[in-house]
Amino acid sequence: MAAEIAEQPDVWRRLLADGPAAGIDAAAAMVRARRPRAVLFVARGTSDHAALHAKYLVEIRHGLPAGLVSPSTMTAYGARPDLRDVLMVGISQSGGSPDLVRCLEVARQQGALTVAVTNDATSALAGAAHAHVDVLAGPERSVAATKSYTAQLLALYLLLERVRDVDGRPAAAALPDLGDAVLAREAEVAALAPRYRFAQRLVTTARGYSYPTAREAALKLMETSYVSAQAFSGADLLHGPLALVDPQVPVLAVVADGIGPVEHVLPRLAERSADVCCVGHPGAVARAAVGFTLPAGAPEELSPLLEIVPFQLLALHVAVGRGGDPDAPRGLSKITETL
Amino acid sequence: MAAEIAEQPDVWRRLLADGPAAGIDAAAAMVRARRPRAVLFVARGTSDHAALHAKYLVEIRHGLPAGLVSPSTMTAYGARPDLRDVLMVGISQSGGSPDLVRCLEVARQQGALTVAVTNDATSALAGAAHAHVDVLAGPERSVAATKSYTAQLLALYLLLERVRDVDGRPAAAALPDLGDAVLAREAEVAALAPRYRFAQRLVTTARGYSYPTAREAALKLMETSYVSAQAFSGADLLHGPLALVDPQVPVLAVVADGIGPVEHVLPRLAERSADVCCVGHPGAVARAAVGFTLPAGAPEELSPLLEIVPFQLLALHVAVGRGGDPDAPRGLSKITETL
Repeated sequence: MAAEIAEQPDVWRRLLADGPAAGIDAAAAMVRARRPRAVLFVARGTSDHAALHAKYLVEIRHGLPAGLVSPSTMTAYGARPDLRDVLMVGISQSGGSPDLVRCLEVARQQGALTVAVTNDATSALAGAAHAHVDVLAGPERSVAATKSYTAQLLALYLLLERVRDVDGRPAAAALPDLGDAVLAREAEVAALAPRYRFAQRLVTTARGYSYPTAREAALKLMETSYVSAQAFSGADLLHGPLALVDPQVPVLAVVADGIGPVEHVLPRLAERSADVCCVGHPGAVARAAVGFTLPAGAPEELSPLLEIVPFQLLALHVAVGRGGDPDAPRGLSKITETL
Repeated sequence: MAAEIAEQPDVWRRLLADGPAAGIDAAAAMVRARRPRAVLFVARGTSDHAALHAKYLVEIRHGLPAGLVSPSTMTAYGARPDLRDVLMVGISQSGGSPDLVRCLEVARQQGALTVAVTNDATSALAGAAHAHVDVLAGPERSVAATKSYTAQLLALYLLLERVRDVDGRPAAAALPDLGDAVLAREAEVAALAPRYRFAQRLVTTARGYSYPTAREAALKLMETSYVSAQAFSGADLLHGPLALVDPQVPVLAVVADGIGPVEHVLPRLAERSADVCCVGHPGAVARAAVGFTLPAGAPEELSPLLEIVPFQLLALHVAVGRGGDPDAPRGLSKITETL
C-alpha cells in the first residue's frame, strides 16, 4: 500500500503523457459524435467515489443531467430502461465484477453508448463497452485501492474535458509535482496518526468536488483500520448526523480552496465541541485542532487528487499503528465479485 | 416521536383516500403530458431516502434513467444543465430548505417539469414547482422524521404509478392494517433495545427496494441515539466496509421477501462472526441471532413502509433507554436550512 501510494505522481505523469493515445481521445471522439443528453455512471466501492467526482464534472461543466446507477435494478430486478441518448460509464479497477459487466451489456442493448474505465484493458468490462479507457496505473496489489483511484479521477477528467473539446492536460500539468510535495511531508501525517490510535468512530465531511474525497477517506479508514468512518456532505451532516458528533467522535474535514464547507459547517461543529482535523487550505487548517495544509496550484476540480493522499497515508499509519496489515485487510480480497 | 410513529397507518389511510384529489392525479397528468425522458430527484436527509426509493421505482418500473441531484452543483457552482425532457422532483417534509427551492427554480428555468412533494402546501418548495403533491402527514413536531417519511414513500409510489396510468391504491390497500399489526408488536422491539444499549457503532444493510430502509434506519439511530450507524447496500458492504465488522459491531439487516441480501451477504457476515439482527421474512429471521418478522401481504416495492417501523421504534427505545430525548436531539432543529 505504501509503495502504491508513493507511485501516484508517476502514474499521473504516465496518464498525462500516454492517456490520450491509450483510449481517452478515441472514447471522447465517440462520445462527441453521439452527443448524449444524459450521463449515467456505474461503479462500486472506491470506483464509485471516482464516479461521484465525474458526476459533478458532468453536472457543472457539461450542463447535462447525471446519475449513479443502482446495479441491482438491472441485474436483480431486470430493469430495461430506455437509454437512447444516454452515455453510460462503467468504472472498476479490475473490470471483473459481474454485476458491472452485466449493467454495461444491458445498457448497450438498450441504446446507450458505453465506456469502460478500468486498469485492465483485457478485462470483461473493457470488452463489454463500446470504448475503453485504460487508467494506466499498473498492477495494484494492495486490497485498499490508492493509485487506481487517483488514476480514475484523472482519466475521467481528461476524458470529460476532451468530450467538450478541451485538452485537460495543461490544467493538470502541475499535479505530479504537487503530489510529490505532499508525499514528501509523510512525516506530518505519521505524527497525526497516534491521535486516532484508539478511535473507533470518525466522521469525514466535505462539499462539492471534495465530497468524494470525504467518502474515499472514510472507506480507506474502514478497510485498513476497521474504524466506523462515516462521510457526509456538509449539508447532509446538518440534516441529522450532526447529533452524533461530540468531543469523542473526531471529524476529518476537507476544506478545498473553492466552496468548501467552512461557512456553515465548521461553526456548527465547534458548537458541538468537535475535534476537527482540517485538510486543505491554510486558513481553515489554522483554525482547526490539527490539520494538513495542501499546496496551492491545482484547480478546484482537480484538488481531489491531492486531497486524498494525506488520508491514504493516514489510513496506512493508523492501520500499522494498530498492528494491522493494510495490504491484507481481514475479510476482503482484491477483486470483489458481486451479482 | 412515539405518537407520530403510531399515527402512520392512519396517515397512509388518509393518503390512500384523499391523496389523488390532493395533488397526485393533477401532478401525474402533467407528467404524462410531458413524457419525460429522465427523472431527477433532489432532497436531503430522510427525504433523500424517499427519493432513493422513488429512483428505484423509476428505473425498474418506468424504464427511465434516474438520478439524485447534488444540490451544490446548482447552488454553489452555478450549474445550468439542459433539462428539457427531464422531470425534477423535490422532496422535503417542511419544503423550507433554501437550497432545494433554488434547485427547483433553476431546473424550471432550464426546461424541466418540476414537482414538489412536501408536507406543507404553503411552503416555498411547493410554490416553486409546477405541481405540488401534499403527503398529508399532518404536523410533524419530532425532529426525527417518521410519519412524513412513510407518507413520502406512499405518495411517491401513488404518483409514479399514476404516471404510468396505474391506480396504485389496490396494491397498497393492505398496508394500513399491516402497519397496525407491526405497531401492536412494539413490545418485541422494546425487548431488543437493551441489546444495543451500549453500542457505539452499528452497520445496517439491505438490497434493492429495501436499501433506503437501511439508510433511514441508520439515520434514525444516529439522530436519536448518537450511534455511528452506517448503511451499506449488500454489494457495497462487500467492497471494503465488511472489514470493519466484527462481533463488537452489530449488524441490522433488512431482508425483504424479494431479492434480499441473503444469498451473498449473510454468509459473509457469518464468517466475520457478526451479531446480526434480521428484520424481514421469517426464514432469515430464524437464522439470525435476533430479529423481527414482518407480516406478509405487501408487494416488495411497498414493503419499505412496513420495514422502517420496527427501526423507528428501536431508535426511540434505544434513545429513551440511554436517557436521551428523541424529540429534541442535541444539535438539531426541525427545519434544516442549508444553502
